[in-house]
Amino acid sequence: MIHIVITAGGTIEDIDEVRKITNTSTGRLGVELCKALVDYMKSNQPQEAYTLHYIATQTAVKPREHQNFRLYEVTDTQSVLNTIREIFSNHTIHYFIHSMAISDFATGAIIPLDQLAIELAGVLMSAPQDQWLELLGEKLRNPIAALDQSKKISSQSDILLCLKRTPKVISEIKKIDPKVFLVGFKLLKNVEDEELIRAAQVLAEQNGCDLVLANDLSTVQKGAHVGLLVKEGQVIGRYEGKADIARCIIIEMFKRRD
Amino acid sequence: MIHIVITAGGTIEDIDEVRKITNTSTGRLGVELCKALVDYMKSNQPQEAYTLHYIATQTAVKPREHQNFRLYEVTDTQSVLNTIREIFSNHTIHYFIHSMAISDFATGAIIPLDQLAIELAGVLMSAPQDQWLELLGEKLRNPIAALDQSKKISSQSDILLCLKRTPKVISEIKKIDPKVFLVGFKLLKNVEDEELIRAAQVLAEQNGCDLVLANDLSTVQKGAHVGLLVKEGQVIGRYEGKADIARCIIIEMFKRRD
Repeated sequence: MIHIVITAGGTIEDIDEVRKITNTSTGRLGVELCKALVDYMKSNQPQEAYTLHYIATQTAVKPREHQNFRLYEVTDTQSVLNTIREIFSNHTIHYFIHSMAISDFATGAIIPLDQLAIELAGVLMSAPQDQWLELLGEKLRNPIAALDQSKKISSQSDILLCLKRTPKVISEIKKIDPKVFLVGFKLLKNVEDEELIRAAQVLAEQNGCDLVLANDLSTVQKGAHVGLLVKEGQVIGRYEGKADIARCIIIEMFKRRD
Repeated sequence: MIHIVITAGGTIEDIDEVRKITNTSTGRLGVELCKALVDYMKSNQPQEAYTLHYIATQTAVKPREHQNFRLYEVTDTQSVLNTIREIFSNHTIHYFIHSMAISDFATGAIIPLDQLAIELAGVLMSAPQDQWLELLGEKLRNPIAALDQSKKISSQSDILLCLKRTPKVISEIKKIDPKVFLVGFKLLKNVEDEELIRAAQVLAEQNGCDLVLANDLSTVQKGAHVGLLVKEGQVIGRYEGKADIARCIIIEMFKRRD
């Protein structure tokens, strides 16, 4: 049995009861990856049993379900990490395609701006100057007057929202299982191919990606999604349109594994 | 010709090129309002010509279009305000149902937290203490080291995001035309009916609402959307389900106008 994980869509981080941080990802590339995988297995490995573990956010477009398909719905970055760990603890995963757009930030404290100013002034007045930087770092992250985020935040004043870095999901994959074949994604905006390829290579080196799909947001926004498939710093393919990008990722993934 | 405006869905405020602040509103109540209006006009005023100006956010569920229907797509709070002003400048609006969930906040400066700490410490060191509060307020709103939000913000460090209050859209409607019949919405969470009705009445008094639909998010989340229709501090109806809420808003609106 071959086990494949695909992540898709954009994470959702709650600010309060009604407000949330999302991103522009729709999950459509994940749907194409799913289709491409089903087609590939049917044509090339019809005898091989496989399971596709599909991790998608609530708002993502979902693929049509089929017998080899298992859906895991997630919301924020932490729920993605938990789900990945659960899947790895139950199965030996052979391929991991991480197309999900992860927030990178979780919402930390929320505080009315003028109250924060009062709190900072109060703390600094009674502290020696050589402790100011440390105190400011601490107070900006964890102010006493932070609002209760389990309620709807009042819009009576300007507020400051602390966004704390979340663990990079992609860096966790090979730590959990160094043998999994990992496909990463790098999205930049309005850059030359050279810079995009360099960024893809950095992503690959830092996280052990076997393949990276590098793409530029400006082509996505124009409706003509262009993707460069990068392996060991070299472009091994250039594709246009999500269907073509997805098909070639699946083909290259199975080819390069052997 | 009767002109009716309905606003629906949740606004979208960009944080940067890919991240954005949204809210839980789906736009489904707006769709029901639209259906209820069409039904009402067909049954009760079949000879009367009308136009429904439907202002909805890109992500909102949309009603089926019909001959009296005109769609205006919007994104952030400012675009909602611009669209409303444009419609009022072209038509005499008789009814305005403001069911849209407006962000209340636009994204102001974004700054890496540690850089902000350095900037604040530097500014305060060379200023007398009686100016600290004012300087902190100014620097928290407009830090020099603010990041460029037209790009994708790097996730190399924790960041602070300033959320600035936007003008309350609902308070603008009667300022533009005091004669329009205005239906407002008040959403709270886990409160007693009494508190909800009081909040609805405050909304009505501050903004000149002729009717307010007061609802509790906890009923929406449970899938059994309960709405109280409030006029001059009195509950004139209690409804369950979006279709019923919408139908009764339309009926009461036309009744109370006369």
